[in-house]
Amino acid sequence: MKKHNFSAGPCILPQEVLKKASEAVVNFNGLNLSLIEISHRSKDFIEVMETARSLVKELLELPAGYSVLFLQGGASLEFLMSAYNLMKVDGKAAYLDTGAWSSKAIKEAQALGEVTIMGSSKDKGFNYIPKNYTVPTDVDFVHVTSNNTIYGTQLKEFPKTDALLVCDMSSDIFSKKIDFTQFDLIYAGAQKNMGPAGTTLVIVKDEILGKTGRKIPAMLDYKVHIDKDSMFNTPPVFPVYVSMLTLQWVKKLGGLEAIEKLNEAKAAILYDEIDRNPLFKGYAAVEDRSLMNVTFNLTDDSKQAAFDKLWNDAGISGLKGHRSVGGYRASIYNAMPIESIQVLVDAMIKLEEQA
Amino acid sequence: MKKHNFSAGPCILPQEVLKKASEAVVNFNGLNLSLIEISHRSKDFIEVMETARSLVKELLELPAGYSVLFLQGGASLEFLMSAYNLMKVDGKAAYLDTGAWSSKAIKEAQALGEVTIMGSSKDKGFNYIPKNYTVPTDVDFVHVTSNNTIYGTQLKEFPKTDALLVCDMSSDIFSKKIDFTQFDLIYAGAQKNMGPAGTTLVIVKDEILGKTGRKIPAMLDYKVHIDKDSMFNTPPVFPVYVSMLTLQWVKKLGGLEAIEKLNEAKAAILYDEIDRNPLFKGYAAVEDRSLMNVTFNLTDDSKQAAFDKLWNDAGISGLKGHRSVGGYRASIYNAMPIESIQVLVDAMIKLEEQA
Repeated sequence: MKKHNFSAGPCILPQEVLKKASEAVVNFNGLNLSLIEISHRSKDFIEVMETARSLVKELLELPAGYSVLFLQGGASLEFLMSAYNLMKVDGKAAYLDTGAWSSKAIKEAQALGEVTIMGSSKDKGFNYIPKNYTVPTDVDFVHVTSNNTIYGTQLKEFPKTDALLVCDMSSDIFSKKIDFTQFDLIYAGAQKNMGPAGTTLVIVKDEILGKTGRKIPAMLDYKVHIDKDSMFNTPPVFPVYVSMLTLQWVKKLGGLEAIEKLNEAKAAILYDEIDRNPLFKGYAAVEDRSLMNVTFNLTDDSKQAAFDKLWNDAGISGLKGHRSVGGYRASIYNAMPIESIQVLVDAMIKLEEQA
Repeated sequence: MKKHNFSAGPCILPQEVLKKASEAVVNFNGLNLSLIEISHRSKDFIEVMETARSLVKELLELPAGYSVLFLQGGASLEFLMSAYNLMKVDGKAAYLDTGAWSSKAIKEAQALGEVTIMGSSKDKGFNYIPKNYTVPTDVDFVHVTSNNTIYGTQLKEFPKTDALLVCDMSSDIFSKKIDFTQFDLIYAGAQKNMGPAGTTLVIVKDEILGKTGRKIPAMLDYKVHIDKDSMFNTPPVFPVYVSMLTLQWVKKLGGLEAIEKLNEAKAAILYDEIDRNPLFKGYAAVEDRSLMNVTFNLTDDSKQAAFDKLWNDAGISGLKGHRSVGGYRASIYNAMPIESIQVLVDAMIKLEEQA
């Protein structure tokens, strides 16, 4: 029996994607060669890379002037690269501190320039998104994290600024339709809605690069990767291929508008039960709740063993909350079927019935 | 029919590895979950990472005091990281320039300190390994590239130095038995003898780190990755898993001594034919010939179409030389069966018979 996989990332991917990826590992495109043993400069792999890059542009409705890259190193390397490419020598940047990932991004930027933390929700364990903060006007760029997997919070609006706007969108890209042209740089580790761990999507407005006066090492320089069509060095072939398959699946489902409706419906079922069932309470502030990571706690900790048995018996995996928050976290990314959410809700109802 | 895959990298992997990897993409360890949709902090994946790391130590016979990491970014990011971690502020390093990859490594190091090129074979299109060069004594480290895929040359001896010795071993690690303790830092992109593109093996002597006086960004700092057991951020799960499978295969074959004998036998068959057959000549100096990449040219270019037809008809792929050298390159990594080499030699003999 297939598990109901609520893992926070690496996480569930569409079954048809897994099946195609598995086949390509033994025989790719009917070549009688594995995907992972052909040259990345072969016609067949170049087509994979170009298809993946153009699907990103199509799904996000990016106009001309944006470049799409598939790099390595995860968001963690992008914390450094984004600052390296945009922070002027003796420059400044403003960050919104909404959790562990923002904090790491801030730390990397601080080594390159002056960082203003324009807002933080650290005071309440990052269970909300700061609002009514002032966006500094004298900065090179403004940086936000759109979704905070650990705490289950999500930005519903983005800062208005004349500075460059940078977003770490690792855990909610391709999950809903927004105006992506409000950003100058977006980066996202693949291992949530896009593919397996091992590649990072970078979307960058070409005109913003090359203006820092800073010498950038080749592998950290977006311009170098753009000039080489994302093939400056050997790309992570398998993660890029699986990302391409997943993006094709998103397109087939109807694109971001269709996915957004599904994600809203899925999240509503679960949040409704959390709010209805007296044995549970949500962790994140209601107005900042994430459509991707639903964090909740028992109102009575003595029921933990009983609840854990119920969801384990139902074939659910990956439901434990992050160690820094505790409780439960249901990650319900794009590929999560609505049926799996109903299985979880049923376990929550059963716990109430046992009481 | 399975192709005879002479690709220079990404390249041939053992058939049994590809089969197991394919299965894990749909159902890993009988979990009813894909390898690529489980948490990297799950018991099952931590075991993969630890098995891979300990197989490296076992196969290379590394004593205590060395750490093994599986990172991202390929050798190209290691060009930067190796210098970042070892070059003192206002420091110096000496590089042996044996081709395109050495040259890129030199370029990254030059941004961090003073680089002496202690020897170069650029004068003859990198078709030999410089010898009798002087190793500077006043440097922080000495850097060499053990095998040069493009030109088909390979170091048979390594510099003797009191400075730290660094080796880019991307294209011949795990191919033969040498004394790996002569190195303080070894790095290798996986996509030749170890696995698919997307992970980089780093082997570092712990005691050499933390001595530069340089502030190192977290993702570029070997110490950060060592302290987190190669899980500072989400590792490239699939490439690490396939690397583990390939290392298990090397061990099962009898380890590096056994692999070396096979590799010598395979290379001898091909070089013997190049030297015997008047229609072919080797590109690399005889004493520096690589056991991994066999580069050769036709003595009469008018036979190119005839030869290309012969090897294509025989089911051979990936034999074209690198664009900077031309001619042919047979990459005969660990997983290349001796039968495939015989198929190539037969095509070379047929060309002679046609004449």
